[in-house]
Amino acid sequence: MRAEILTIGDEILIGQITNTNSVWIAQELNLIGIKIVHMASVADDEAAIVNAFDNAAARADLVFITGGLGPTKDDITKKTFSNYFNAELVMDEKVLEYVSSFFIKRGKEVTEINRNQALIPKGCTVIHNPNGTAPGMWMKKDRTVFISMPGVPYEMKAMMTESILPKIKKENNLPHIYHKTVLTNGIGESALSEMIESWEDNLINSNIKLAYLPQPGVVRLRLSSTGLDKETLKKSIDSEIEKLNKIIDTYIFGYENYGEETPSLAEVVSQLLREKKQTLALAESCTGGYISSMFTGIAGASEIFKGAIIPYTNKAKHDLLEVDNALFDTVGAVSKECVEQLAQNALKKFGSDFALSVSGIAGPTGGTADKPVGTVWIAVASKEKTLAFKFLFGDNRQRNIIMTSNYALNTLRKFILKSR
Amino acid sequence: MRAEILTIGDEILIGQITNTNSVWIAQELNLIGIKIVHMASVADDEAAIVNAFDNAAARADLVFITGGLGPTKDDITKKTFSNYFNAELVMDEKVLEYVSSFFIKRGKEVTEINRNQALIPKGCTVIHNPNGTAPGMWMKKDRTVFISMPGVPYEMKAMMTESILPKIKKENNLPHIYHKTVLTNGIGESALSEMIESWEDNLINSNIKLAYLPQPGVVRLRLSSTGLDKETLKKSIDSEIEKLNKIIDTYIFGYENYGEETPSLAEVVSQLLREKKQTLALAESCTGGYISSMFTGIAGASEIFKGAIIPYTNKAKHDLLEVDNALFDTVGAVSKECVEQLAQNALKKFGSDFALSVSGIAGPTGGTADKPVGTVWIAVASKEKTLAFKFLFGDNRQRNIIMTSNYALNTLRKFILKSR
Repeated sequence: MRAEILTIGDEILIGQITNTNSVWIAQELNLIGIKIVHMASVADDEAAIVNAFDNAAARADLVFITGGLGPTKDDITKKTFSNYFNAELVMDEKVLEYVSSFFIKRGKEVTEINRNQALIPKGCTVIHNPNGTAPGMWMKKDRTVFISMPGVPYEMKAMMTESILPKIKKENNLPHIYHKTVLTNGIGESALSEMIESWEDNLINSNIKLAYLPQPGVVRLRLSSTGLDKETLKKSIDSEIEKLNKIIDTYIFGYENYGEETPSLAEVVSQLLREKKQTLALAESCTGGYISSMFTGIAGASEIFKGAIIPYTNKAKHDLLEVDNALFDTVGAVSKECVEQLAQNALKKFGSDFALSVSGIAGPTGGTADKPVGTVWIAVASKEKTLAFKFLFGDNRQRNIIMTSNYALNTLRKFILKSR
Repeated sequence: MRAEILTIGDEILIGQITNTNSVWIAQELNLIGIKIVHMASVADDEAAIVNAFDNAAARADLVFITGGLGPTKDDITKKTFSNYFNAELVMDEKVLEYVSSFFIKRGKEVTEINRNQALIPKGCTVIHNPNGTAPGMWMKKDRTVFISMPGVPYEMKAMMTESILPKIKKENNLPHIYHKTVLTNGIGESALSEMIESWEDNLINSNIKLAYLPQPGVVRLRLSSTGLDKETLKKSIDSEIEKLNKIIDTYIFGYENYGEETPSLAEVVSQLLREKKQTLALAESCTGGYISSMFTGIAGASEIFKGAIIPYTNKAKHDLLEVDNALFDTVGAVSKECVEQLAQNALKKFGSDFALSVSGIAGPTGGTADKPVGTVWIAVASKEKTLAFKFLFGDNRQRNIIMTSNYALNTLRKFILKSR
C-alpha cells in the first residue's frame, strides 16, 4: 500500500512550527509496512488543498491529512472536504453529545462554535477524538481513502493509535514487517559503526536492514525485516541481536519491541526500581529539573520517585544539601567531592534507596581553562556506596542538559544493577 | 514572488529524520517577503523528483531543493537535474580545485568519487558550499528558478545566507511582509475567538490575516499583512493590536515581533525578574521539575533562579518545606493551604524575592469525586503577600503538566507585575 501525508496550515508554510506530525505518522506507517511516497504541506487555502487532494489521489491508496479542523474561521479543511466529496455537512448527534459533554465536564458553556464541531460531511466515517472536540473523518473516493485529523499532535496521535491504524490493519492484508531496536548510551554513532562493522556487513545475508537513529546521548539501532512469516522474521532478528549483544553489551540499556514505544532511560530505571519496590531521590544542579521531569512525566512515578532538590546556587547546595562551604573555594561546585556530597545528602534527606546527583557547566558561559563548558560530574549513591564520574560534553546548553541527563540515567541504571 | 520547498531523501519519507530544513528556509524567505505556496518531500527516485519539479514549476517562481547531492549511489538529484534541464554534466575546474583542496587540507586522498562532486550540469550557476564538497546549483527553466542544495543543514544554511538570499534580493524588487504575534494564556481557542469576533471580522478592511496557533495552555494570535510600504504595514498591525489589547488585555502575556523567536512564558518571567535584579524559587509537586527545567533551559538562568524543591511525597513536603502534617489528613496535599505553605517556605529556604508552588493530580490515576484528575492548586508568594488559585485541566498527564506549568508561569507573571 502506498500512502501520502498532507499537512494543512499557514503556520507550516511560514516556518512558524516544525512539522513533527509527518515524521510521527511516517514512522507508524513504516512499522506496519505501508510505504510513504510523498509528503506535502499546503496553506489554509481551498484551491491549494483541492489540488493537493487530486495529486495525492493519483499517487496513493491512503492520504493522511492533518490540520485545519479547528473551530475558528482560518480553518477550512472540513469545508473543503465537504466540497471535494460533494457531501453536505450534517449534524452528527453522537459527536454533538460528545462535544457537549467535553465542555460541560470542564464547567464550560457549549457555544454555537463548539456545536459546529459536530458537523460532518454526509457519508464519511467519523473517527473519535478522545483528546479534543474536532472529530476525524475517513472518506473514500474511487480507490483512495482520505483520512483527516486535527493538527494538534496529541489529538492526532491518539486517533491514529486507537482508531485509524487498527482499522487499516483490519481491512488490509499487509505483509509482515518486524522491527526491533537496540538502545545504546555511552558511545557515538561513528565509533559504534566501526565496532560493529563486520557484523553489519553480514546482515545482508539475513535480509535485515539496519538504521542508525542518533539522539543526544542515545544511539538507537533499528533492525527491520519484511517477509511472509512473522515468526521467521522475529527469530532471525533476535539471533542477530544476540550476536550484537556480544560485541557492544556494555552500551546497551534496553530494547524497543515491535510496535511499542521506545522506552526512555527514565522508564528503564523506573522499571528496575519498581521491580524491587525501591525509591529514588535527585540533586540536580546543571540539569535544573530536567531529569526530575523525565521521571515525573511517567504515570505512577510516585511509587519510585521521592523527589528532588535543585540547588542552583552554592548557598542552596550548602543550606539544603549540606555541601561543605569550604569546597566551593577549593575544588568548586563542579567536582567529585561536591556531587558525592549532593548524592549522599539527597539520599538522607529523602530517605530513598538510591540518589543521583549532577553538577556541571551547561554553558554557553561559565567555562574556564580547567573546566570548559560541557564539563559535568555525576554521582550515584546508596546506603552502601557512592560513585562519581566525570564527563565532557559540548558547547550547546540544551544539548548538554539532555546529554548529561541521559548519561546520568545510564550511570544510575548500571549502579542499581550492580547493587543487586 | 512565490516559492516552493522540495526535500529529497528516503530518510524523510520513512520518518527517520525530522525535516528541519524546510522550516528554516521558510522562515528566511518569509522574512524577505517571499511567499511559500507549497512544501513537498519525495524519495530518492527520478520519476518522483521529475514529477515534483513539474508541479513546482507550475506553482512557483523559485524552487528550493535540498538533499540527494551526496557522493553515494542513492543520491540522484544531480543526475536528475542534468536530465531535467537537458544539460550534460561537465567538470567545473574551479569546483574541482576547491573539492581537491578540501580533502588535501584534511590529509585525505582525492578519490574518483570525490572528483565527481565537481561535475556540474552545463549552463547552471554554481553556488559555493563553504562547509562541504557538494556544490549548489542555480538553474532557470522558463520562468522558474530551481536552486539545489545539499541536505546537511549547516551546509545548506551557509549557502543560503552567503550566496542565495543575497542573489535573490539583488535580482528582485520584493514586496514587504509584516507579522506580529500576540501571546495569550488563560483562555481557550474557541472562547477567545468568540470574544474577538467582531474585531476579527473587521480585519478584512485592513488587509490583515489572522491565525490562531494553539499550544497547551497558550494560544498565539498571528497578524500578518503584505504591501509596498513596511511602515504602513507595521502601523496598521500595531493599531489593530492596540484595539485587541482593549478586549483581551488580561490574557496577553507577550508579543513575538517580526523576525524574532517566540518568547516562552519562562523567558517573559525571567526578563521581568532580570530587569529588577529579583530572584525566584519553586516548590513543584505535580509538575515534578518541568517548570524548573523551563527556567534552567534559558542561558543565564542562574542570575534569577535560586533553585527548586520537588517534594513528590507528603513526607518530603513536611520534611523539606515544613508543610503541617495535619493538613494531609484534613484538606489534603492538593489544597489552598498546602500550596500556600509550600510557596511561603520555598521563599524562606531559598531567600528569593518570589516563590511559586504547585500541587495537583496529574493523572491518569489518583483522582477522587472531590478532586478529579486535572485538579491543580497554584500559589505565588513574596515577602508581602501570598495568593493561591485553583484550576481544573483535563485527563492527560503530559498535557496537565504542561498546562499547569504555563498557567503557573502566567500567574507568577501577573503577581510580579502587581507587586511593582
